[in-house]
Amino acid sequence: MVQYKLTYFDIRGLGEPARIIFHYAGQKFEDDRITGSLDSFRDQLPFGQIPVLTIDGTTKIAQSQAIYRLLARRFGLAGKDDVEQAQIDSYGDFIQDLNQNARQYFLVKNGRAEGDVEKLEKDLQTYIDTKWVKYFDRIFEASGSGFIHKSGVTWIDFVITNIYETAVNLDLKPTAGIKHFKTIHDNVKALPQLKEYFSQRKQTPF
Amino acid sequence: MVQYKLTYFDIRGLGEPARIIFHYAGQKFEDDRITGSLDSFRDQLPFGQIPVLTIDGTTKIAQSQAIYRLLARRFGLAGKDDVEQAQIDSYGDFIQDLNQNARQYFLVKNGRAEGDVEKLEKDLQTYIDTKWVKYFDRIFEASGSGFIHKSGVTWIDFVITNIYETAVNLDLKPTAGIKHFKTIHDNVKALPQLKEYFSQRKQTPF
Repeated sequence: MVQYKLTYFDIRGLGEPARIIFHYAGQKFEDDRITGSLDSFRDQLPFGQIPVLTIDGTTKIAQSQAIYRLLARRFGLAGKDDVEQAQIDSYGDFIQDLNQNARQYFLVKNGRAEGDVEKLEKDLQTYIDTKWVKYFDRIFEASGSGFIHKSGVTWIDFVITNIYETAVNLDLKPTAGIKHFKTIHDNVKALPQLKEYFSQRKQTPF
Repeated sequence: MVQYKLTYFDIRGLGEPARIIFHYAGQKFEDDRITGSLDSFRDQLPFGQIPVLTIDGTTKIAQSQAIYRLLARRFGLAGKDDVEQAQIDSYGDFIQDLNQNARQYFLVKNGRAEGDVEKLEKDLQTYIDTKWVKYFDRIFEASGSGFIHKSGVTWIDFVITNIYETAVNLDLKPTAGIKHFKTIHDNVKALPQLKEYFSQRKQTPF
């Protein structure tokens, strides 16, 4: 049997969607949570960063979305053919566009950078209102499945669920206010395959 | 036969790696180049942006990397199994990390934003020197193929070739100075499958 190890910090962050995929699939994996510095083993990581997925003790895959896509393809959470996979990939990149626009606001709101938090919040809200949410809403409403794709739950719904939880916990209003982020979050939290995991997993703000 | 149309501006930019994949594969496609504004048909685009790939007149795929990955899988330029595909995906995301760090410098250098170009150039050089190039060099040197992956040329080599050409044309010194960007560029430009395309394609600075 294939052995999987996911190495990440002891938070949800960029590791959590991969953990959710494993739990949804009922696939055992080593949940390797780093509490100290990466410096002592940074050189063993493909790009000096985590998350890293190690397969069978030797093959290492870095970059969060590359990890999600690989696991999702293996466990039936990536779309039923290559066109659906590409569509779901593109939703992932569209979520990344939002994350890039939200990044500075997230950092300032959490005291990890200096800046005018009110201006940043207003700018992010304007971006979402004028350039982002109408496309997202259209895609979600066309799917009709309660998830982002018409074929049902995929890895990108887990990414959205994780972002929404962080936005609510940290009071990131523009992101927490995206109506269908809450819908998707609620539908993912209700999946019977994940009930046990969500009820007992470690709680962290992000 | 499947019909492909690639809609993008009349520049290399985010469209060119997809065009190179088509030409490498000898696959006919409609090279739909927009010279005016997107506003009259923005609402027909999945996220209001281009590039967009249209398959058989109806299925639309947006987001540049989602397009490259789909075409690369169809035409044998994505790695030979799912682990190789994930590794190549992760190199794509690592290149995106570089692009994100270079973005403001690119904009200021080209007069499209205000800023201190010398400071931005210095910051980008520091990021490349301390956090980026050692990992990239290690991956390239381990491959031994003259391309980023040991299995030979993949879509990510076309992405790198395109970035390198822009960096040279626009005198973006930190990026143009990445040693193995030039190596990969030179090896891609020498591929017999692409000689004709590169000799006759439209020249644009980026």
